[in-house]
Amino acid sequence: MSIVVLCGGVGGSRFLKALCEMRLQEEITAIVNTGDDLELYGLRISPDIDIVVYTLAGMINPQTAWGIRGDTFNCLDALRNLGEEAWFQLGDRDMATQIWRAKLMRQGKTLTETTALMTERFGLSLQVLPMCDELAPTMMETSEGITHFQHYLVRDKCEKSVKAIYPGGCGFEAAPGALDAIRSARMILFAPSNPFVSIGTILSVKGIRDAITAASAPKVGVSPLIGSDVIKGPAARMLSDLGLPVSSAGVSAQYAGILDAFIIDTADEAQAKEIRELGIEPHLADIMLDTPERRSALVKKVLEAGGAG
Amino acid sequence: MSIVVLCGGVGGSRFLKALCEMRLQEEITAIVNTGDDLELYGLRISPDIDIVVYTLAGMINPQTAWGIRGDTFNCLDALRNLGEEAWFQLGDRDMATQIWRAKLMRQGKTLTETTALMTERFGLSLQVLPMCDELAPTMMETSEGITHFQHYLVRDKCEKSVKAIYPGGCGFEAAPGALDAIRSARMILFAPSNPFVSIGTILSVKGIRDAITAASAPKVGVSPLIGSDVIKGPAARMLSDLGLPVSSAGVSAQYAGILDAFIIDTADEAQAKEIRELGIEPHLADIMLDTPERRSALVKKVLEAGGAG
Repeated sequence: MSIVVLCGGVGGSRFLKALCEMRLQEEITAIVNTGDDLELYGLRISPDIDIVVYTLAGMINPQTAWGIRGDTFNCLDALRNLGEEAWFQLGDRDMATQIWRAKLMRQGKTLTETTALMTERFGLSLQVLPMCDELAPTMMETSEGITHFQHYLVRDKCEKSVKAIYPGGCGFEAAPGALDAIRSARMILFAPSNPFVSIGTILSVKGIRDAITAASAPKVGVSPLIGSDVIKGPAARMLSDLGLPVSSAGVSAQYAGILDAFIIDTADEAQAKEIRELGIEPHLADIMLDTPERRSALVKKVLEAGGAG
Repeated sequence: MSIVVLCGGVGGSRFLKALCEMRLQEEITAIVNTGDDLELYGLRISPDIDIVVYTLAGMINPQTAWGIRGDTFNCLDALRNLGEEAWFQLGDRDMATQIWRAKLMRQGKTLTETTALMTERFGLSLQVLPMCDELAPTMMETSEGITHFQHYLVRDKCEKSVKAIYPGGCGFEAAPGALDAIRSARMILFAPSNPFVSIGTILSVKGIRDAITAASAPKVGVSPLIGSDVIKGPAARMLSDLGLPVSSAGVSAQYAGILDAFIIDTADEAQAKEIRELGIEPHLADIMLDTPERRSALVKKVLEAGGAG
């Protein structure tokens, strides 16, 4: 009977940190978006898994919200000098993770297995699962054609207008254990992550949306937006590009028919009615996650909304 | 009509540097020992090739005589934290070379091909060939059993007494181009490298010793020892462990029947007779390679000894 959390990178890892601070880590199964994954230099990069693990291990670079605090970039710099693409920022310590993961995968380990080993090596006691084992990247249709999510996000800095999103997990098998965790969960949470390229990607994996819909556990999400501002990442830009309302209500519409409850910021009280009309019960809270006090208050609200408060 | 140079890492790269400083780089084909090669983290490490390229590109760390000047070790440190072996010192910039080489090799490129690309990317105009394409490590029989050369050298710091050496190239095909270069060479040089685990390893590769013996070019070697002291590396220790004279004459005995001439330090004049009795013509010179003046004087002596002075 675990708490299943669907999450992406930055918002997701901060939400997981909040849950762990409330001593829930032993109960958590995080199902992490891997639609951001890419291969570079023959290495398998899994950015959201790394952000989650580094954040929970207290090693994340707080300025960037990715990578390892105090890391250097000499290896990447030397790869650039060798003529390699070097737009994806991998620090020297971060590169060790990638080298290590690639070594294990060449020995036949799956991403699920390397992720379990990684959490163990970093001293974490929650369960972290990739959404699926295969490399299944999210593809973005932009004004200039179809491109890998990381090309859109990092290489091209979200400069191109999004016309459509092809979520990476679509048609792929869920990671071993993911569907069982959902079926037996005592609560299912959607982290304040991007509704398209994080949560939406996980929901596109074969069986995950159906398992969540069929599960008896309460399902609670947290909005990644306050007003029309996203705390981190391209969610607001994507909603706008796709012609959708740039608001918590706009996000919640992506979860109609799935979530029971959705936590929005008190500043967005005016959207409550619209969310309720989607069949989702809105709850008001301070959804910023920047201090221990705010994180603990939000977790209490989330558990309350799930009927376990 | 090239100058073929058989060489290992430190002594070999300094000798190549001396030749390049005399504007001979366009003519040189260096055949480099790869018996030191190893696989770590799924990457192919080729230490002597790296030392040669870094030295000639002016990037070598002058303190250690391996690795890149000013390099950091954050990636290796993080690999250690992940539970990986980390006794082989690979700096962050050096790691980029290993990642890049491994990527190319997984794409099907041979070590000969990756080495040619490496010299090109580092702006060098000499030809650098590995002795062979396969991973063919030199194995050391020590007082405590048989061990990989790098385990003996780096991990165990030459602490174990050497009883026998199994040269890595033995039975393996020479790298494409190596035998042709030897056959058509205008001069064949043995760098002041270790006679067992550098030059001896190259000579053990299928066809190389025979091609050198049959070649009409003059064959000149340079001693790696002055008195009983080696400038860098475990040559003196090995000669001693194996019960051989720790001297330039002791080294030259390994080259009897192959070399025409052998350059020894003027301090070792007393050994000239012994070397001559092996059928090798001794030449006296200042064999230290630490200044441009000394390097240029030595190269002149080498070319003279080869009849091209």
